[in-house]
Amino acid sequence: MPIPFDTRSVCALAFDVFGTVVDWRGSIIREGGLLSAAKGMHVDWPAFADAWRAGYAPAMDRTRAPRAAWLSLDVLHRQILDSLLPRFGLSHLSEAELSHLNRAWHRLSPWPDTVGGLNRLRGRFVISTLSNGNVSLLVDMAKNAGLPWDCVLSAELAHKYKPDPAAYLTAALLLDVSPHELMLVAAHPSDLRAARDCGLRTAYVHRPLEFGAGVPREVDRSFDLCASDFLDLANQLGA
Amino acid sequence: MPIPFDTRSVCALAFDVFGTVVDWRGSIIREGGLLSAAKGMHVDWPAFADAWRAGYAPAMDRTRAPRAAWLSLDVLHRQILDSLLPRFGLSHLSEAELSHLNRAWHRLSPWPDTVGGLNRLRGRFVISTLSNGNVSLLVDMAKNAGLPWDCVLSAELAHKYKPDPAAYLTAALLLDVSPHELMLVAAHPSDLRAARDCGLRTAYVHRPLEFGAGVPREVDRSFDLCASDFLDLANQLGA
Repeated sequence: MPIPFDTRSVCALAFDVFGTVVDWRGSIIREGGLLSAAKGMHVDWPAFADAWRAGYAPAMDRTRAPRAAWLSLDVLHRQILDSLLPRFGLSHLSEAELSHLNRAWHRLSPWPDTVGGLNRLRGRFVISTLSNGNVSLLVDMAKNAGLPWDCVLSAELAHKYKPDPAAYLTAALLLDVSPHELMLVAAHPSDLRAARDCGLRTAYVHRPLEFGAGVPREVDRSFDLCASDFLDLANQLGA
Repeated sequence: MPIPFDTRSVCALAFDVFGTVVDWRGSIIREGGLLSAAKGMHVDWPAFADAWRAGYAPAMDRTRAPRAAWLSLDVLHRQILDSLLPRFGLSHLSEAELSHLNRAWHRLSPWPDTVGGLNRLRGRFVISTLSNGNVSLLVDMAKNAGLPWDCVLSAELAHKYKPDPAAYLTAALLLDVSPHELMLVAAHPSDLRAARDCGLRTAYVHRPLEFGAGVPREVDRSFDLCASDFLDLANQLGA
């Protein structure tokens, strides 16, 4: 069990985005469906979405190689997309269509509680993204989905992807708060553990449908807070 | 005269903040008046505001010395404030009072057209700060004044103060636009000339009262746009 702490010691909340704030899988499937309908083609979009996301961790790993140049998540998403085209029968798409599809990550939809929860939390805390998505992706997403961020922070600003400590500590530095005054909100225990190792407070939010129905998720209840959604988080934080 | 350009080629607007978006002088004078009233003391706050701001350019210059460490604008503001205390009879203020006064820069008020203009411009463009103010200062200011930024960018992210080219080019990089797709909006010709030298589009906004009534301002009409305020800018940009 975590040691109880005074929630008044927290000044700012930094949110993981993919899976925590937005439903990337459902959104990619929906965008794929629009493309299928427009082009009159059949694609297994759930399998496609899963394959696209499955390329994410290996792509991150490549950026961590010694002397690897920084590549934005937009670039990594496109590399993965290009590698999937033959398998999913998408090789005939035009460059404009592929570019638009790659930017589906800029247009992901929030979970049903996201915007209402953020608007409550924003009254009491500085709320920021802290995502591996690049700044421009997060800005586009916020405009498209009405996400009321006070600030858009990204691993891009540290040129180190989470869970590298530099990503979390750069966020605290830019918000001018001590690590223990900053709380990471995330649906992924590995992200939260890395933040905790940097001294941040941690709030786990349960997103059981991130990878689709019935997919088992890692359970770790060792964080400062554990919330069923952003409205529950707002309740627990008195916002 | 500048060569006419297609305003549709602009994707994002980056705003200088002090003087362009907010009335720093009137706001510092007003905050000083609150302090005077609470403490029952007399201070020449207009002279104080001018002296505080006059320390800005020399402080910037010190950060540009070879091997100088990066210092945020909050730190520079405090150094200047400390140097002014004896002259303005403020040496008796407590640390908490001085810290609060230093953060008056986090609570500056917008010009009367600012919020309405930004809300119009935001419908058509990505709108961001591009200020020498540190990120946390700009975030606090936006929350306090209702400034609807899509993104808070600062010279802090490049660790180079404007007019260093890195400040402008880092903003374009993070917004994922070419320099010519980004327009700097500013009330200061020197800032706009430096941005133009980096390939940015430029919009001059006239803020005749920035330094108080009757203080002559440099006139330079060589920029892409010249606007009387943010509503006029929105009109000219079709927003």
